[in-house]
Amino acid sequence: MLAADLFSFVIRVRERAPLVHCLTNLVVTNFTANVLLAIGAAPAMVVAREEVAGFAPLANALSINLGTLDVPQTRAIRTAVDAASGAGKPWVLDPVAVGPLPFRTECALDLLDSKPAVIRGNASEIISLLGGAASGRGVDSTAATDAALDAAQILALRTQAVVAVTGATDYVTDGRRVISLANGSPLMTRVTGVGCALSATVAAFVGTASDRDEFWAATVAAIAYSTIAGEFAVRDAALPGSFAVAYLDRLASLDQKAFEKTLVQRDIVSG
Amino acid sequence: MLAADLFSFVIRVRERAPLVHCLTNLVVTNFTANVLLAIGAAPAMVVAREEVAGFAPLANALSINLGTLDVPQTRAIRTAVDAASGAGKPWVLDPVAVGPLPFRTECALDLLDSKPAVIRGNASEIISLLGGAASGRGVDSTAATDAALDAAQILALRTQAVVAVTGATDYVTDGRRVISLANGSPLMTRVTGVGCALSATVAAFVGTASDRDEFWAATVAAIAYSTIAGEFAVRDAALPGSFAVAYLDRLASLDQKAFEKTLVQRDIVSG
Amino acid sequence: MLAADLFSFVIRVRERAPLVHCLTNLVVTNFTANVLLAIGAAPAMVVAREEVAGFAPLANALSINLGTLDVPQTRAIRTAVDAASGAGKPWVLDPVAVGPLPFRTECALDLLDSKPAVIRGNASEIISLLGGAASGRGVDSTAATDAALDAAQILALRTQAVVAVTGATDYVTDGRRVISLANGSPLMTRVTGVGCALSATVAAFVGTASDRDEFWAATVAAIAYSTIAGEFAVRDAALPGSFAVAYLDRLASLDQKAFEKTLVQRDIVSG
Repeated sequence: MLAADLFSFVIRVRERAPLVHCLTNLVVTNFTANVLLAIGAAPAMVVAREEVAGFAPLANALSINLGTLDVPQTRAIRTAVDAASGAGKPWVLDPVAVGPLPFRTECALDLLDSKPAVIRGNASEIISLLGGAASGRGVDSTAATDAALDAAQILALRTQAVVAVTGATDYVTDGRRVISLANGSPLMTRVTGVGCALSATVAAFVGTASDRDEFWAATVAAIAYSTIAGEFAVRDAALPGSFAVAYLDRLASLDQKAFEKTLVQRDIVSG
Repeated sequence: MLAADLFSFVIRVRERAPLVHCLTNLVVTNFTANVLLAIGAAPAMVVAREEVAGFAPLANALSINLGTLDVPQTRAIRTAVDAASGAGKPWVLDPVAVGPLPFRTECALDLLDSKPAVIRGNASEIISLLGGAASGRGVDSTAATDAALDAAQILALRTQAVVAVTGATDYVTDGRRVISLANGSPLMTRVTGVGCALSATVAAFVGTASDRDEFWAATVAAIAYSTIAGEFAVRDAALPGSFAVAYLDRLASLDQKAFEKTLVQRDIVSG
Repeated sequence: MLAADLFSFVIRVRERAPLVHCLTNLVVTNFTANVLLAIGAAPAMVVAREEVAGFAPLANALSINLGTLDVPQTRAIRTAVDAASGAGKPWVLDPVAVGPLPFRTECALDLLDSKPAVIRGNASEIISLLGGAASGRGVDSTAATDAALDAAQILALRTQAVVAVTGATDYVTDGRRVISLANGSPLMTRVTGVGCALSATVAAFVGTASDRDEFWAATVAAIAYSTIAGEFAVRDAALPGSFAVAYLDRLASLDQKAFEKTLVQRDIVSG
């Protein structure tokens, strides 16, 4: 895809400040909100079942993350997804640690029927969503992303969602097309919530898109933008505490020229 | 008010380390605790209904924030407010996103009867507490603070609380007197929790005050101190990640001379 | 103990990346995860009663922190502790603010029967676990650590746990032996969660240990490593916002030579 077309989504987010309704995990709530503010979006963590139905239609997109799922949250998530879907708002699923934990796996599988616009996970999680045997170790993937590429394509065809498998190399597919992205830094895995906040960033980008074709481009743009920001942040700070700070700064300031010069993408000819 | 009188509250907080009991939202819990520690106060996030009645009387003030309200928290908040009030401890209400969301709006209106010492909100929230039609967009105010000044004064007279409307310009009123404060930086809105933590800071300051007249001065002092710290932090760091770090540093170190030189306040002649 | 032997646990954590299952409080969840990532461990905050029984046996250690205990969490904690114990995995108890608050005190006393590998608390908390009258003020200890040394030794003998009392001076005892550690900085108390994250760090270190004798050495190593990292971080940053960032950076990078040169320990001849 043209780098300029991808960056046009960054500009849209900065100009429109999409309101992103997040039901996410307890570990990353603060960081996710700060990432959304840094990119120019507006975070809203409305969590109670009593409120999500009324709030989801007011937002531009909904971001669902299963990282610290419990019973009350499954109910709030179901209510929020139904309300967002009913109002025609796109929603993003981050199936954290799905696979070895049956409670959240069932919740995730159940949610697949509600037509997420995007599913973003690591290789283990994407394979597990297809019923595969890739067992993760908590939140870490034990599989490389390319091992999940087939699963991602099947999952995309089956759910009609754009599917992103992120890791050292990131893959984004709508079932037919596949793009790989090779930006980022290993230090992004040494700060908690970078992946979870990326899902919320995808929701922000998708919240400025109007159809499935744009969801695809918006997802590629969100991942490219975030990983390139990470790559610049590593130049500022090589240790995890200061890297997290630099990452937020870069997310707030990365410009089009630096983005275009740094982007590493490749079209994959599907097998 | 005399800048030196306002700064005397900063000194009190640093010397007495008031214990501030916070029932706040999931997004800002950590940042709020770090802000309180930075100014020299002692945060205590005791949240269970089973514990708040015993704990609230031990604290110097209670800070209530409705940002991620759910049913169990409404019960814990009610119990904590009753216990603090019963023990003669001041409490502060931050009615986050009240207005478009009926569940929290009802909770906030119900709490108004329990005589908060201070109510701090943005313009939309303060207007909504009076039953007005200013609809916010999640946590963001869509109204300018001056549009809420009349509502703030009426609310203060009706509840006997000091009411603070914060935004680009901040207003503090006890119903009769109004002071405007014009310090701060737009970057304070690009870090999640700056406003929520400000409410907890108000509680810390009010926790060193002994009567309604002092609540008024303590609220002005807390807002002036925080916004001036923000103004200095922007000189240290112009992007949101590093700004948040610099803000905590400035809250911990801002001295009287810098405070007095930077303070921009004005008495408003009420209409 | 030999400094090189203590540092061998740091190396183990970096090489093995122990998976640490944490049920901790809402204030420190993010910071705890980032501390664990900084030292090279893998955090996993699986919190629902429906999931903890299945997850605890997959982890290398379990870290329990009572800071924002509520009824659902008491059940999840009980389930997780039983599952970890049943699978032979060590667990660490951080009895935050036990003493003045009966609800969490009962929970903590009940958990003592389930054989924690390590108990880490401040002086007030350790004295309170023995039924003593040291009343803390929220999360702050009002007693010096040496006042709790006798209580720590009795508690260690009674529970068979390694007991650590942390403060300006830290004491670690298994009931017979006592070591004091005198590294660290007062600034560590101006950032929320440093103590709570230290308990999780102890769990990470203990997760690489194989018997009670190693639990003892691993606990000393975890506290020594963390406090020395804090001492170096203060040299980088003298104010709390930037200190927190520097602390994570130092946890990720402190080398053996700096560790050995800085360590201040002393064997205490028990009375």
